[in-house]
Order: sequence, then structure tokens, then C-alpha cells
Amino acid sequence: MRVAVLGATGYAGTMLLAWLARHPVFKVVAAVSEHAAGQPVESVMAPRPGIPAEFVGLAEFSEMDPPDLAFSAQENGHGLDLLGRLVQAGTRVVDLAAQFRLADRGAYEAFYGPHPAPDLLSGSFSGYADDPDLVYPGDRLLLGNPGCYPTAFALAVLPLVRSGLSLPLAFVDGKSGVSGAGRAPKPHLTMGEMAENVQAYSDPGKHRHTAEMRKASGGEVVFQPHLMPMRQGILLTIFIPGGRFTAGTVRERWEAFYQENPFVTVLPKGEKPRTAAVRDTNLALLGVSEDPGTGTVVLFSAIDNLVKGAAGQAIQHANRWAGLSPATGLI
Amino acid sequence: MRVAVLGATGYAGTMLLAWLARHPVFKVVAAVSEHAAGQPVESVMAPRPGIPAEFVGLAEFSEMDPPDLAFSAQENGHGLDLLGRLVQAGTRVVDLAAQFRLADRGAYEAFYGPHPAPDLLSGSFSGYADDPDLVYPGDRLLLGNPGCYPTAFALAVLPLVRSGLSLPLAFVDGKSGVSGAGRAPKPHLTMGEMAENVQAYSDPGKHRHTAEMRKASGGEVVFQPHLMPMRQGILLTIFIPGGRFTAGTVRERWEAFYQENPFVTVLPKGEKPRTAAVRDTNLALLGVSEDPGTGTVVLFSAIDNLVKGAAGQAIQHANRWAGLSPATGLI
Amino acid sequence: MRVAVLGATGYAGTMLLAWLARHPVFKVVAAVSEHAAGQPVESVMAPRPGIPAEFVGLAEFSEMDPPDLAFSAQENGHGLDLLGRLVQAGTRVVDLAAQFRLADRGAYEAFYGPHPAPDLLSGSFSGYADDPDLVYPGDRLLLGNPGCYPTAFALAVLPLVRSGLSLPLAFVDGKSGVSGAGRAPKPHLTMGEMAENVQAYSDPGKHRHTAEMRKASGGEVVFQPHLMPMRQGILLTIFIPGGRFTAGTVRERWEAFYQENPFVTVLPKGEKPRTAAVRDTNLALLGVSEDPGTGTVVLFSAIDNLVKGAAGQAIQHANRWAGLSPATGLI
Amino acid sequence: MRVAVLGATGYAGTMLLAWLARHPVFKVVAAVSEHAAGQPVESVMAPRPGIPAEFVGLAEFSEMDPPDLAFSAQENGHGLDLLGRLVQAGTRVVDLAAQFRLADRGAYEAFYGPHPAPDLLSGSFSGYADDPDLVYPGDRLLLGNPGCYPTAFALAVLPLVRSGLSLPLAFVDGKSGVSGAGRAPKPHLTMGEMAENVQAYSDPGKHRHTAEMRKASGGEVVFQPHLMPMRQGILLTIFIPGGRFTAGTVRERWEAFYQENPFVTVLPKGEKPRTAAVRDTNLALLGVSEDPGTGTVVLFSAIDNLVKGAAGQAIQHANRWAGLSPATGLI
Repeated sequence: MRVAVLGATGYAGTMLLAWLARHPVFKVVAAVSEHAAGQPVESVMAPRPGIPAEFVGLAEFSEMDPPDLAFSAQENGHGLDLLGRLVQAGTRVVDLAAQFRLADRGAYEAFYGPHPAPDLLSGSFSGYADDPDLVYPGDRLLLGNPGCYPTAFALAVLPLVRSGLSLPLAFVDGKSGVSGAGRAPKPHLTMGEMAENVQAYSDPGKHRHTAEMRKASGGEVVFQPHLMPMRQGILLTIFIPGGRFTAGTVRERWEAFYQENPFVTVLPKGEKPRTAAVRDTNLALLGVSEDPGTGTVVLFSAIDNLVKGAAGQAIQHANRWAGLSPATGLI
Repeated sequence: MRVAVLGATGYAGTMLLAWLARHPVFKVVAAVSEHAAGQPVESVMAPRPGIPAEFVGLAEFSEMDPPDLAFSAQENGHGLDLLGRLVQAGTRVVDLAAQFRLADRGAYEAFYGPHPAPDLLSGSFSGYADDPDLVYPGDRLLLGNPGCYPTAFALAVLPLVRSGLSLPLAFVDGKSGVSGAGRAPKPHLTMGEMAENVQAYSDPGKHRHTAEMRKASGGEVVFQPHLMPMRQGILLTIFIPGGRFTAGTVRERWEAFYQENPFVTVLPKGEKPRTAAVRDTNLALLGVSEDPGTGTVVLFSAIDNLVKGAAGQAIQHANRWAGLSPATGLI
Repeated sequence: MRVAVLGATGYAGTMLLAWLARHPVFKVVAAVSEHAAGQPVESVMAPRPGIPAEFVGLAEFSEMDPPDLAFSAQENGHGLDLLGRLVQAGTRVVDLAAQFRLADRGAYEAFYGPHPAPDLLSGSFSGYADDPDLVYPGDRLLLGNPGCYPTAFALAVLPLVRSGLSLPLAFVDGKSGVSGAGRAPKPHLTMGEMAENVQAYSDPGKHRHTAEMRKASGGEVVFQPHLMPMRQGILLTIFIPGGRFTAGTVRERWEAFYQENPFVTVLPKGEKPRTAAVRDTNLALLGVSEDPGTGTVVLFSAIDNLVKGAAGQAIQHANRWAGLSPATGLI
Repeated sequence: MRVAVLGATGYAGTMLLAWLARHPVFKVVAAVSEHAAGQPVESVMAPRPGIPAEFVGLAEFSEMDPPDLAFSAQENGHGLDLLGRLVQAGTRVVDLAAQFRLADRGAYEAFYGPHPAPDLLSGSFSGYADDPDLVYPGDRLLLGNPGCYPTAFALAVLPLVRSGLSLPLAFVDGKSGVSGAGRAPKPHLTMGEMAENVQAYSDPGKHRHTAEMRKASGGEVVFQPHLMPMRQGILLTIFIPGGRFTAGTVRERWEAFYQENPFVTVLPKGEKPRTAAVRDTNLALLGVSEDPGTGTVVLFSAIDNLVKGAAGQAIQHANRWAGLSPATGLI
């Protein structure tokens, strides 16, 4: 299958190229970047066989035959015309931006403002690549790949919700490497500011990923994200008040849900996930403990924000959509 | 005043030496370490004027005149005989271990096991050096310096509790640099394991600092600590459910409580503390936000675990105890 | 092909498992570790499909049919009996320790002391997997995989030496992530010691890799290694005094030598390699500049010490040895 | 003494404020920043007693009485008019930019281009604050504070050159934390690019600090700087070819030169400096080893680039200039 990567110079874009270089079925025919057109790939990553040596601009890309599959790692609200044309031409598109993650336009607009392409929304769908129940509709060509924090959250809560447990309220402490904020240099993201530094950002209830998280748990989510002094990785610490179920129940539901899943490991009692163990992989680690005094259950979910939280999940989706094994090229 | 540092080679011990080197009143006459006796100070830190050039062992120390003041950075349960003899000789002792932090022996033993020196407990006292109401009793010579996490917690909650707000339940996500675990090498503390790594450790309700934290807030504390890929610094993220008060109220109470305090800064609305800003200082930064949907208030408290959370607070205590300005030698 | 990994819990061992999990031809039938026998793989790394779920001890391994291929990541001088038995049984062995890297026993013993298995030495061979001229002798079953620093060095100097340039003297400044020192915790390798820390170690002329480096350049090598505050990656900065050739000549020879090589990229004039760009890959980046005043040429070589400098090169060797494309399973 | 800090929001500026807050004689009356005028100091650093709570702009500063002493941490070529006016008004100025470091205008212009204030040059002087022979001329009011790399270099070579040893050629490998590049965000300085990253920058013979280094050693200097994945700290590794003297001789000359110096420690044989040991201090650590085969001597010099390499040395200069002990407020 002929594949294009749009927005190929950002962190998600280069991660897509790195993984696609080793994919046995998907062949990258274009690494598209308007601002880096004509530049060699080594300006942003180490070159490797299986991916183009140079970025191409939009003009050049539009003259090529439409690819079978496109991954778009363009910023939210950017390049929607191009996505529309690709869909028109029959190309399957996995979009890593936020605009097609929420079927509910109102939920989107409450956090992001006016939807940039409402006409495309009805032909789109979304979901988690590790959700065994997700159906890839034959008549839709546009897939909204979930956000990084919501993916870590959904991996922990979907097995609970699907098996009938209720999660009316969760306090979620998010810890992410700085790559989650993208490649563009910002004053607070330099090594000079981030070395030996941990800090909260955004406000509870205001981070844009909150809508996706509420959708996953079906309840209130008080989400407070933090920047960690590292590049890649997300750890979510999810406090669930109230003694509605035990850590043992959580572990059972997780194990049942992920029995066939090649990526997700449920850690044994007493162990908690480390982000370093999943860096540069599409794997996820889940752990759980509980507070005997209050009955609070604490869930831990670790992923690489750029792989399982972005490029890896996108390829996993494309694998399933194409009828391939989910793990194709992703181990 | 003649000062000794016991357990001088650990992270708290060397931090004590570094700060005492610049203290105008306290003069270090002995840097005591049994296992490093006779070794030059440069085996563990850069030498500087104002501190001894070599560590001395216990035998040599016991032959010296008792100092006016001793800081003990020995491990919990170690060196209690020595502390007893110093107190006997009239030396004021600030102990950085846990054994004299809790007046309630039962609360101590629930987390730490049998108390190592119950006979000394009744002559000891404890408290936070930033608590303006703390009294230094004339007839007691043994001060239990608080733990690092409880200090960050108390800085945020004491002003609320003292002004009459009630905190029946708090979910506390603790984020600490690895120096909090001490200098001794352990498999999970190497740079090879901790680079690009965030991980939870201990279990909610089981970390030993929980007792101190419950004492500070007067309510339930569900505490989950995490290791950060950095050396120094603690950030606490404290979720207070339930709409009992607003972020604005918190900020008011903090400002009133710390009006005369030279170390604690209450950040303006919308800002949140960074641990890097307080690294290698005795300063603290506090911030607060709230979740409009659930009324949850989120408190943020940042300190350096080795300074405000250990050596700096110990010196601040000694300053106040000696009738000096709290900030003497601590800016 | 049935493959075993010996010494599977160390950093090179787990890196071997991670890469072999995605190899299309080599199937791991045993992850051998005496001290971790029976433990689940998640005690040291995130589990993934394609590798065993548990480590096996030596007793259990010796009862299995001998594998076609074994990678040994045991420490220098350890497990030589086992390697001998495997060779006896016709298993090809790629040994990542130092004992079979130098055909010249004297050169080995000058740095390492008495050779631990002189009887095996004559049946062994060594070389760099990126050396197109390396021949894999049909009658030898034991391959000494090069060291990490020598690999980075040889990648830069082999193309020069092979094309007739002479390198009588090189000053080599080595910069390595801490994983080069292995997984075992040592006092100077903790995050507490290594955060915000750069330091030299060993002495010029004394580091054990010097022998391999001299063999590669055919001249004197003054090698000074340093620890960097990071996990993975080596950058060598190689000062070649004297105006014997220009940076342009270097670039030409490199490009000719690596024309068919899928892993090594020669950077354009003015660019210098970044270790982050090759982290967790088997790739290498080379750059060169020159000092106009003295004619000194400065070579830069960046690899991941655990991949190209250990596990990746070992698999690349095994690929070539088995008649596979060098890049099989390594992109 | 009334003191102003110009360019107070950058990394050197905030480091000046942090150290001046604890200085017993110098009192900061103005923290000047045109772009941050009116902003609270907590926008860039944690507030502390002894420094102003807000930055002032140039207009407001020009209305104040001229200070007795000014530290300028403005960028090279910026704010020269202001410095001229201060000198005119009798204020002593320590300038941390490059323009007054080299008495030889030609040497300056070869690296930096046209001198921005040639008229002020003749009234300026420069030198190293740890040079016991440096004279502070009574009739000059403008002191050019040395660069960070040259300071680390001069600390190692001045004692050799002054005692008659000759250094015709040195290969210098510089390793610096990213704060050396300033606070302004640049694409290559983000944590996303610098985590797990070591890279060379500039070219040998082209870095601007080379002129200062040649002046210090009196010979050729082939200087190659590198960025380290950390915030603060410089380690220089200086290869001196040729057996002109031994490591033992170096150690003797260093010890004689620094006998009275409160900041510089010469490490015992076999030990090498760590940058972490001098972080956030005005201290320096020196070590030396030699290569028996070639007679190459390797010098190691570690400082904090923002303290000894900038703010700390500037205050040390001001101390000596004012007749105070060099260590006043600097331990």
C-alpha cells in the first residue's frame, strides 16, 4: 500500500516515518511538509531505508497519484482542504489532530472553538486502536486518532466501563514528556527551563483532552496535566474515590479485556509502570493499587505519547482498517 | 556558635555543610561520618571555606568539646545513643530523621515499627519552621525536623486549617527528584533506569510520610508519591474535592499567613510553581486553581526536597531557636 | 532459526530481546539468566510478542536442544564454558564481551589481564558489521562483537585507513550515556550523582577499548572517555592533528565506503551528528570539520552504544553470517 | 553600595540577582529590563528578600540616582550608550558581554565584527577574577568579565604559563550545559531536542571564545564546543600533546598558584572533576592525567558556566575592585 505522511517534520510526523520505515506492507511514497519542501530528511531525523530522502511540498504532492493511505500529523485546523481532497479521491486518512476525535461537534467546540471542517465530520469516525469492539466502517474514509492523554486514560478505564463498572468521578494527574507540546520552540520548553523541572500546566477542567476523557469514562474527570523533565512518555495517576470496586477487580477486568492484545501488559499486584519501559514502543503498561483507609483505587497507565499516544496507534488503526494484524510492523 | 553535622556524607548532610559554609553565626567544627572518617570532603562534595577539610569519625568527635548545636542527618534509627549523649551535654539537636517528628508514638509506630528511642521522645518537639506560631520550648533540646513531602504539604494546608477551613479529604500526587531516596545506590535509582522515566512508588496509605501529612491537614490524605527524572525538587499536586472553598479563598489565606515570611511566595492567579525555580534554595512557591465543573480545588506546592525539605528547614529552625532571624544565612 | 540470548537481563541483553522480537527470521527460544531464572520478563523490560515470557536458568537451558545461534551478553570472563559447549554443538555464537575481539592475545592481556579462554580464541574471529570487506569464515563459530567506543571510532576511521590515508595520532574525546557501564548499580551512576553532571573517567591510555581503537586506526590513540547525563548514545570527537588531509577528503572517502550501507549517513558540510537522532536505532551519523589555523581535522561519530555499539551490531553480524541482508529486522 | 543589574531577566541576570540577594555589602536598587519593565520578578525567578520585586525599564532607571556599581548582562552590542552614561557618571561597570574582554580591538573584530563602542574600549580593562596578579586600575570604570569557556580554560592554563611553561598547542573539547546559549528559545535548545542528546556545535577555530583562550595560553587552541543534556556546567578536556611537562608538574603549579584562593580546588592524583559538584557555586575543580604512551597531558576544568563563568566571577571582580575579600557573599 502506498502511504503518505502529511506534516512529516513534527514529532508525530517523524515518529510515523521511523515506524513506517520498518512496516512490511505500508510503503511511504511521500513525506509532505510545506515549509521543509526540498530539504533532506536528515534535517530533522536520521535517514533510514524505506522512507524518502527528501520532504516534498504540497504542490509536488498534489501532482502525485493519490496514496492508498495518508497519515496527517498536521496541526489542529490545518490542511483540512487537503484531507478533504484525499477523502474525495478515495484515500483512507488517519488524522492525528483533534478535529475528528469527537463525533459530538458541541463537545469539540466547547474546548477548541469553531470546528474547522464540519462537512467532513459526518464522514469521519474515531476510537481507540486497542478497543477490540471498535468497528471500522466501510463507508467512511476519515479516522480521528485519539489524543495522547485520552489514550492512556482509555486504556485504563475502558475495560472497567465496558464490563459494567461505573466511574462517576476521577481525579487524573497527568505527567508527560515535553514532546507532547510539539517541536516548535517555546520559552518554557527549553532544556534551560525544563532541566530539573516539574510543573503543572493548564487548569483542571480546561485542558482540551478532557472531553475525550469524559467520553471514555462516562463520568466527571478532573484532569491536571504536568510537564516532566524528559522527552517522551506519559504516566497517568488516576484516583478513583469511594470504594466502588477493588484493585483486584480492576486487574481482573483488565486481564480479560487485553487477553488477546499484543501491546498492553497488566502488571502483577504491587508493581507500577515505568515510562522508560515503553519509550519508543507501541506498548502500554497498567498497574493498580488501593488505599485501605478510604477505599480509593489508584490506576496507573504508562505509554509513549508519540507512539501509542500518536504515531503507533495511528499505524495500529491503519493495520486493523486494512485487515492486517494489529501488530504488523509495530513490535 | 559551634556546630556539628552528623551523617555528613549523605545528601542532606552535604547540603547542610554547603549552607552552613555561608552562615554568619553557625561555625561547623565537625563533619562527622563513621564510614568516611579521615577522608577529604572532596570525596563527596566540592570543598569550600567555612567547613572542615576532612570528615571525622565518632571516636574523634566524642573527644571534642560538645558543640552548641548539632544537625543529625543520620538514617532513621541510627546514632540515637550519640543524640542522647549530646542532649545530656546540653547540645541542641536538630534531627532530620523521622523518629522525633510525631509526638504521638502510636502514629510513628504504625508506619515505622518500634520507636528506636522512646526515652528521648518526651524531651523532643517538632513543627514546621515556616509556622509562625511554633514555639521553641526552653526545656527541650531535641527537635524533629519534618519530612520533605509533609513540608511541601504543610506549607499549602497549614494556612487553611489554621484559619478555620476544614480538609476532611485530600488526594495528593507527590513528584520528587531522586535525591529524596538518599545517596546509597539502589538498582532503580541509576541514571540508566531513571532517564526518561517517571514512576509511582509505594502505595497510597503506606508511605511513611502519610502520618505527618494527616497531622497537618487534620483529615484523610490519600498520598501517592512518584519519582521524577531529576535530582532535586518536590511538586505536590493536591486535589481537594467538593467545593468547600474557592481558589480565591485559598490565595487570601496563604497571603495572610505568609505576609512576613521571607521564603514563601504565593503565585498570582493562573500561575503554577516550577521546581527548577526553587532548586538549591530554601524558598517555596504556592499556586492554586479550581475545576469549575466539580468545584475541586487543586493546590500546588514546590520546594527543594534537600533544602526546604531537609537541610534548609533545619537551619531555619536552628536560627529561630537561637533567636536569630529565620533567614540568617539562608537566602 | 532458533536463537538464544545469554545474559538476557542486562542492558545489552534486553536490547537484544527487544530487537529480536521484531526479527523475521531469528526466533528467540530462550532468554537465559541464571540469577533471574523463572522471573517474568516484565521484571526488567516491557513484555512483547516474539520473546519468551520468562527467563530460564542455565540448567533448564542446557536441557534444551542447542540453538542455531546464540548471542552472549554475559560479562567479560563469564560463561566461557557454556560458550565452549555451544560451539562444540555447532551453534554459532556472537559474543558481546571483549574476550574475542582481539585476535592478538597479547594486546588483549595488556588491558584485561589473563585471557579467560585461550583455547577458544583460535576458533574465533572479529570485525565490524559495517565493514564491507569482513569475511565470515565458514569454519569458525565464535564471533567477537566489537566494543561500543571502538565501533564509533572504526566507523569514522576505517574508510580513511582502507583508502590509504594514514592516522599516526588521534586525540579521542569519548562521550557516552551511562548505560555503557551496565545495569548494575554503582555509586557514581545514580541519577542523584549524574543529573546535571559531566565527568571524565578512566585515564588516557588506560581504557580497555584503546587496544581495539589502535587496531582500527593503525596509529596512536589518546582516548579519554566521559560520562554524560543521559542513558544511551555515544559521540566521539576525534582530533587529528597536522593537515595530512582535509575535511573534504574525509567526506569523500566516507561516502565511497558507505555507498551501499543502509545504516551510516555522512552528514553534509557544516552539520554535526546528534546522539538523540540515533537513539534506539542501529544507525550511525558521521560529520567532519577542520581548523583552518592548524589544519586539524575533527571527526564526529554518533551511535547508540546499546544498539550499533552492542545488540544491533551483533544482530547485523548474525544477519550477514546467515546470508541475510544486513538490515534484516534492524530498521 | 548601591548596585544595578542591567539585562536582569536573562540567565546571567537572574543568577546575578540570586547571588546579590545574599551579598552583605552590595544592595540591588534596580533590576533593569526594558522588555520586562513593570513585571514581577517571579515571572523569571523565585522572589527572595534583598532584591527588588519588579523589573524597571530604562526610562525609570535613568531617573534614579546613578548606582555605585552596575553589572551588565545585556547581549553583546546592546546597551552601550547606557554603559557610557554610567561610566560618565562615575559608576563602576562590570560588563558580562564580550566587547571589553579583549584589549586588542583586532582580535575582537576577527571574531565578532566591528566593535560596538571603540571609544569606551580604551577606558576598559579585563582579566580573570582568580588571577592574583590582576590589578584593578584606579582610573578605569569598565571591566570586561571573561567568557565562560575562557574562564574554565584560564583556570587550568594560567598557572602553567605564569610559571614559565609553554603551551604552543592545545586541543580543547568543551562540554557545556545549554544555559550557555541564553534564555531565548531556539529550535535546537528545547528539551525535546536536547534530552538524551550530545552534539558538537560551531567549528574548531570559529567559536568566538577562541581569541580569549589563545590570549590565556599564548599558543594555538583548537577548540570544539559541545552541548550537553543539562542546564548548567562546563567541563573542559584539554589535550596537550608532546611530553613538555608531566601531570605532576601541572599539579604542583596549580597548587602553588591557588594556595590562597578560596574557590579553586586541585583534585588529588587520579581524580577528575564533576560539573554537578560545582553547580550553583562559584567554585572550580581542576584535575590532570597523562597518557604514558605519547606523553600527552590531559587537563580537566569544571565550573558552573553561569556562576564562575558569568555572575559569580563578576561579583568576585567587584569584590576585589571594592577592596572586599574576593569571597564576600560568594560562598
